[in-house]
Amino acid sequence: MHILITGAAGMIGRKLIARLAADGALAGRPVEKLTLLDVAGTPQRPEKFAGKFDAIAGDLADSTVARNAVAGRPDVVFHLAAVVSGEAELDFDKGIHVNFDGSRALLDAIRTVGDDYHPRVIFASSIAVFGAPFPDTIPDEFFVTPLTSYGTQKAMTELLLADYTRRGFLDGIGIRLPNIVVRPGKPNKAASGFFSSIIREPLAGEEAVLPVDDSVRNWHASPRAATGFLIHAATLEPKAVGPRVNLTMPGLCCTVAEQIAALRRIAGDKVAARIRRLPDPLIARIVGGWPARFDARRAIALGFKAENSFDAIIRAHIDDELGGSIAR
Amino acid sequence: MHILITGAAGMIGRKLIARLAADGALAGRPVEKLTLLDVAGTPQRPEKFAGKFDAIAGDLADSTVARNAVAGRPDVVFHLAAVVSGEAELDFDKGIHVNFDGSRALLDAIRTVGDDYHPRVIFASSIAVFGAPFPDTIPDEFFVTPLTSYGTQKAMTELLLADYTRRGFLDGIGIRLPNIVVRPGKPNKAASGFFSSIIREPLAGEEAVLPVDDSVRNWHASPRAATGFLIHAATLEPKAVGPRVNLTMPGLCCTVAEQIAALRRIAGDKVAARIRRLPDPLIARIVGGWPARFDARRAIALGFKAENSFDAIIRAHIDDELGGSIAR
Repeated sequence: MHILITGAAGMIGRKLIARLAADGALAGRPVEKLTLLDVAGTPQRPEKFAGKFDAIAGDLADSTVARNAVAGRPDVVFHLAAVVSGEAELDFDKGIHVNFDGSRALLDAIRTVGDDYHPRVIFASSIAVFGAPFPDTIPDEFFVTPLTSYGTQKAMTELLLADYTRRGFLDGIGIRLPNIVVRPGKPNKAASGFFSSIIREPLAGEEAVLPVDDSVRNWHASPRAATGFLIHAATLEPKAVGPRVNLTMPGLCCTVAEQIAALRRIAGDKVAARIRRLPDPLIARIVGGWPARFDARRAIALGFKAENSFDAIIRAHIDDELGGSIAR
Repeated sequence: MHILITGAAGMIGRKLIARLAADGALAGRPVEKLTLLDVAGTPQRPEKFAGKFDAIAGDLADSTVARNAVAGRPDVVFHLAAVVSGEAELDFDKGIHVNFDGSRALLDAIRTVGDDYHPRVIFASSIAVFGAPFPDTIPDEFFVTPLTSYGTQKAMTELLLADYTRRGFLDGIGIRLPNIVVRPGKPNKAASGFFSSIIREPLAGEEAVLPVDDSVRNWHASPRAATGFLIHAATLEPKAVGPRVNLTMPGLCCTVAEQIAALRRIAGDKVAARIRRLPDPLIARIVGGWPARFDARRAIALGFKAENSFDAIIRAHIDDELGGSIAR
């Protein structure tokens, strides 16, 4: 099994690579080769991976880079490369170049390899393809009316992926990721950043700012669950998925109050007291336009699994990022 | 008022031009200039139009052509240029080039004019953005999962149009046209061709072939109604439309049996007897994947109007194409 990962240097990319290196197998077959691509520089060979290894530094929207990436005919392609929502909104040209033109160049490079080349392509999409107003619970058949350029570019790629799959150019599955929390690393300026920082910073002994009301809801899954979605997608039979290849992933709908209550249960009052309330109407407005609750029936029936409590999400963070310990 | 029409030589283009020339006005303002673009050759000045006139022969996907088309800063752009469903399915590269790359080049040319240029852009989309299976009646919030490359390319353009509108680059409205019937002209090989030919040929004294069962349904509107949708879209206030700019047009859901009954009512038994039944399982299968009934609530609330009987659709054809007379 030869696996290509685009956007290998991103947070999800690094998690996925570590998991594949640890498992040594995907969909029941040994991982013999890894090809890692990122625009930010040449990816390094992952620790604990002894198989063949190739690394590419480059912009996927450059058709030479895209053709080079698939020249070794990877069996499974994890397409994670993207600029995030905030950046795609600030820099329209960069967003569409990376998020759409890069995706299209990858799909076209696969299509033109020829010789019955037909890999599984797993595309990291996002629940940002949806735009408010929403029903209380969003069904699988709900329409896609994004309110960001990022969501638009993801939705356009989903359409291409489905058409290329239907035409037999490749075997695609689009995975609409929930809000991923607790993100490791430093606080960033993403409007969604506080969902992670109100957990991550207190657990590390630092103060965090909560800019929205306690009643705000979102649709969450851990980085560990996100990695699991990608891995699971590689195991599915195309017949089980059918022509509607873009799937909203399961997640956990909970309020900020429920997040804080879970933190208190796990880490105690002193840790939970490190959250400072500082309302920010702009962030409140942005977050208010995001989808918060799905009935992700198809993905669940196909075996995708997310956490079913925020406690489990916090515990995954403590285990995976903090070596099991908390700064009480 | 300066109006640009792309795909000016197509059936809808010619109907729209004739209507604009006859009306002499659009959205309450006199039509001072018409710019017509088509890839098939240089469009001719329409009869009865005395205003300024410009004609462009060229491929809109060529950014020079696209920039040239909007250099005169048209106030309203009707973007009709497209290759049809069957052709986009047979020639993938041509389909995406014309239907998507051409659309994107037009939208980008508008975006880069600068200087607060912000035209109304009316995009002829299609109910082919939808793919089976469907509920009995398809609501406005139903998701878009096309089963043709044509539908995919229309859906991708809809997403771009909405994002460009949201960002303030232009003021877009996407009009999802029903099956247009009765199409004038000769029978063609489109799988949908029989919906028109079983009316058009008998009215002209010729035999027509019906390849599907009488119980087959579709979502119909006349060429006159389609022209009306485009004209009406030019009059709408952006605030009334909101950010969900792609609208499923109203239409008439009826069966083939109801089409034939209307033909018999209007033209008599002898005319209706010119329909010969010759089942074609391939056509039956293709047509079975098409949407047949919508609850087009938003478009109706915005004032779009379609025929409410198949009799009215046949009468529009007799008036507009046959000078009011039938070959009995």
